[in-house]
Amino acid sequence: MTTKNFQQALNEEFSQQTYGENPVELYEPIRYLMDLGGKRMRPLMTLMATALFTDDWQKAIKPASAAEVFHNFTLMHDDIMDNAPLRRGKPTVHEKWNANIAILSGDVMLVQAYELLMEVEDSRFKKAMKRFNRTAAEVCEGQQLDMNFENREQVTEAEYLEMIKLKTSVLLGFALELGGIIAGASDKSCELLYEIGINIGLGFQLKDDLLDVYGDPEKFGKQVGGDIISNKKTFMLIEAIEKASGETKELLDKWLNIKMFDNAEKVKAVTEIYDLLGIKQLAETKINDYFDKGLKCLDALKVDEERKTELRAFAELLIDREV
Amino acid sequence: MTTKNFQQALNEEFSQQTYGENPVELYEPIRYLMDLGGKRMRPLMTLMATALFTDDWQKAIKPASAAEVFHNFTLMHDDIMDNAPLRRGKPTVHEKWNANIAILSGDVMLVQAYELLMEVEDSRFKKAMKRFNRTAAEVCEGQQLDMNFENREQVTEAEYLEMIKLKTSVLLGFALELGGIIAGASDKSCELLYEIGINIGLGFQLKDDLLDVYGDPEKFGKQVGGDIISNKKTFMLIEAIEKASGETKELLDKWLNIKMFDNAEKVKAVTEIYDLLGIKQLAETKINDYFDKGLKCLDALKVDEERKTELRAFAELLIDREV
Repeated sequence: MTTKNFQQALNEEFSQQTYGENPVELYEPIRYLMDLGGKRMRPLMTLMATALFTDDWQKAIKPASAAEVFHNFTLMHDDIMDNAPLRRGKPTVHEKWNANIAILSGDVMLVQAYELLMEVEDSRFKKAMKRFNRTAAEVCEGQQLDMNFENREQVTEAEYLEMIKLKTSVLLGFALELGGIIAGASDKSCELLYEIGINIGLGFQLKDDLLDVYGDPEKFGKQVGGDIISNKKTFMLIEAIEKASGETKELLDKWLNIKMFDNAEKVKAVTEIYDLLGIKQLAETKINDYFDKGLKCLDALKVDEERKTELRAFAELLIDREV
Repeated sequence: MTTKNFQQALNEEFSQQTYGENPVELYEPIRYLMDLGGKRMRPLMTLMATALFTDDWQKAIKPASAAEVFHNFTLMHDDIMDNAPLRRGKPTVHEKWNANIAILSGDVMLVQAYELLMEVEDSRFKKAMKRFNRTAAEVCEGQQLDMNFENREQVTEAEYLEMIKLKTSVLLGFALELGGIIAGASDKSCELLYEIGINIGLGFQLKDDLLDVYGDPEKFGKQVGGDIISNKKTFMLIEAIEKASGETKELLDKWLNIKMFDNAEKVKAVTEIYDLLGIKQLAETKINDYFDKGLKCLDALKVDEERKTELRAFAELLIDREV
């Protein structure tokens, strides 16, 4: 089975899914958000994980889509909290409709994620749901920490890593683990799958932080330097604050506290500080460490190497991405 | 078993329940809202329903509490949407903290409701969850309709009844049905339990509308006439608009459109219109019809009459309530 097959199956599933009809204010936003697309990474990971153990990966399609619906539920609610005007280039639900509708539609999406998860066969369902509940609570914890950090003077590297782990990685870990649970894989295999997801997720998020500063403007979809402009406490900035001293510290503080500035000038200046402090290398080392750890867990999985091809290729795609 | 035993068991359960610790902004609001109390009607109904079929009603305590946690989740989110400053006489979560925290804490509460529901034994769990999902989606639909009706000129009786059924009654129906599912009652019995809850719930909500106008100010907790003051489209007002004609219609329209008025004067005037149109009797007949229908379903349940004592007494308490 190739990734293309999985993607096709998922596209078909999502185009067929119905989310309810009445009242329209409740259900249209769900359709709208799901149709904005996205990479469908999470359900894809579930299918890949199931296919490690069995050729009958199709039974994983519906439960896999629970992870995607859940992910989109978090986007709908996070966008309200973050006051985000756009999602994938289109108006967010609370902008297009209003905040109340975004709250309530999101609530129904969470219920629908559970409904889709019910497609896991009976004997394995409670295990899947136990893990899903834990993951869902952790994702909320991550979002709360993220909001808390915005209002804090200082955030340590360890705190930041814990936050992105909760906000992003645990769902990737769950997506892979779910595939194992559906396939009836051993507890040991399920744990390894989870660890693959956690580590690749951490590497993935840190790469995001790196690309925001060092990405190729031609390839990178977002504005390069967006995090710098907004003083976002990413891995890069947290490390820089920790490492800077003397004049460099003064200069960094100046740029962090300045109210009126030219965007390009600030991005250039802060990037130069990062260069000086070796933040790029630091981030790259960290990212590689996480990806390596993830791949080692994949190595440790007791499955024919041939079966691992797709998941390995997928992980490498995430590692090498420049956008 | 008496209602007191059930209530004691539930109080103990809720005082022992933990909802998580970190970050505190996420979990404190849950504890806060749950500790505001309330009648715990829904889990009480679950325990009563389980006890209809088995003496081992204690196994229903944890899953029963799922209905209460879910109910409180809807309160937390509804209060944001309704911009409500107070809940049970205390500041609402979004007032005491903020709207973002109320959104996210609510989300975690919904997850925790599912976690508690998992205490239904394996062989009966999917049935319970299927019904819970349906109910949860319907409660959201009811809330959306309620918000829609606020901005609509006209709402028919049928539309209003459908809205309160979704917003309130289905959860009472589910609470009873859940008790049956936990006890391993037949599908037929589960359906009857659901119908009891639906009908009693409708009667209960309509009684709320009635008491708002005709309640004894000495006994009624809220301000009598609150719905009249705010032009709330309750059963009473919907019927009055439908029935009024000629001068009465003009008078009612006047009071509905007037911007500046003395509260007591408006309450008195609109109540007189209701009196004139026989709205009180109309509501009482409707309420009695629903309660009767609910009690007939209880009669039809194939269970020793003796076992029905508690549930019957509970229903009658709701019927006769003056507050």
